[in-house]
Amino acid sequence: MVQREMVEEIKGWIYEASEVIKAKLAMPLEVAEKENRSDLVTNVDQEIEAFFIKKIRDNYPNDQILGEEGLGDQVTDFKNRVWVIDPIDGTLNFIKQQENFCTMLAVYEDGVGQLGFIYEIMTDELLWGSKELGVYLNEKEIIEVPNKPLEEGLININTSIFLNNHFGMQELAMEALAVRMLGCAGIAFKEVVKGHHQAYVSYLQPWDYAPAKVIFECLGLSLQTLNGESLDLTKKVPIIGSTPIVAEKITVK
Amino acid sequence: MVQREMVEEIKGWIYEASEVIKAKLAMPLEVAEKENRSDLVTNVDQEIEAFFIKKIRDNYPNDQILGEEGLGDQVTDFKNRVWVIDPIDGTLNFIKQQENFCTMLAVYEDGVGQLGFIYEIMTDELLWGSKELGVYLNEKEIIEVPNKPLEEGLININTSIFLNNHFGMQELAMEALAVRMLGCAGIAFKEVVKGHHQAYVSYLQPWDYAPAKVIFECLGLSLQTLNGESLDLTKKVPIIGSTPIVAEKITVK
Repeated sequence: MVQREMVEEIKGWIYEASEVIKAKLAMPLEVAEKENRSDLVTNVDQEIEAFFIKKIRDNYPNDQILGEEGLGDQVTDFKNRVWVIDPIDGTLNFIKQQENFCTMLAVYEDGVGQLGFIYEIMTDELLWGSKELGVYLNEKEIIEVPNKPLEEGLININTSIFLNNHFGMQELAMEALAVRMLGCAGIAFKEVVKGHHQAYVSYLQPWDYAPAKVIFECLGLSLQTLNGESLDLTKKVPIIGSTPIVAEKITVK
Repeated sequence: MVQREMVEEIKGWIYEASEVIKAKLAMPLEVAEKENRSDLVTNVDQEIEAFFIKKIRDNYPNDQILGEEGLGDQVTDFKNRVWVIDPIDGTLNFIKQQENFCTMLAVYEDGVGQLGFIYEIMTDELLWGSKELGVYLNEKEIIEVPNKPLEEGLININTSIFLNNHFGMQELAMEALAVRMLGCAGIAFKEVVKGHHQAYVSYLQPWDYAPAKVIFECLGLSLQTLNGESLDLTKKVPIIGSTPIVAEKITVK
């Protein structure tokens, strides 16, 4: 299938999921803790992951699925086609703000990023990228992101990395005009693509960065780990997404 | 004049100003530094302050005006009626993101807050409060903000205060589920009023907190300095706006 048709199909699923999510916001959420008191999951995260998995199973029964909530497969290799799902990215914002969260989905083939989708539901802003078709913010194609240094812009950084100066990132952050913390990886990557922020630094799981990886590769933006590990979608890694000129300053440990 | 008529008049000015601001975003901005490289001002800040000053002078010629850009009066006392204007709050966001900024305006009489307006232009979200009429988010009245502790929610904190642990605020911040940094006082106060964040901590000028002071007083929310100075709108102060239950934990130095 050509990527154009897959893009339209997946956009349809995402918009359908977003209607469910908006409807769920009008009802009480069921919230549970995962690894710690800030790492939460709701019934909506799980229902939306199940929704995407059903769509994929119905249409692409031979594919593997890696989902944040673990309802997909135990993906141990990225042979053939693999789907990566983050049903609600920024769950804490989803619970506490009912905004500033995303739905994300990516498609990889033999480990190579093919399609990436980051949808900020409450602002109706869909950033998507395709290896064949390029990158779009809703209907508008993004050809190029200005290659600006940190000194002229903003950085979005994870609180713990900033506070504890992991990987020397505190010094890097203070080179920027200002620091932002938004609490949603998808929005943070979208801000880099929009040229609003020059860098985003965090500890991320594969589903947090899989769509951004596709989109950043299409645009020549930089995405790299801070500890020398590869971005092979198998584990949580410290990561920086940035303009190429910011990336030149980073010395991977 | 009753407050209802003034509210409608000021809302009209704010919406008129917002159309000018949105049109200006399509053109190159003229940017200059104020106190440091992160403290910027644009031609739009100045034009919008002049716009509000003309409206006030035409309609309320005997009133004093305190404006961020200094185009108003040298206000040394708050006798009679004083207007406080922040034409673009979050100027760095305005320049770098073309969103996440506010226009703010407040009216005080003999030092007592009467009206406060915080308008987030790009999301068309107007938070306003009147001592006589109550607080509204666009058309919806806000009767009460849930009095939640930090342990159940989010805090928005100024980068320098957080990094350097001024007034012990780092410890306080770490009690929250997560830290946010948005770079706009108006939006930060709006998030507290919406119940999205439980506290906001920053160093603020009078025009940064004058509208929030009116709105917080209407709702029984807490707004206090961290150094024991009074909120008399005469100087820059370290400030915390929060739910009452968070305020109980703060020991003013």
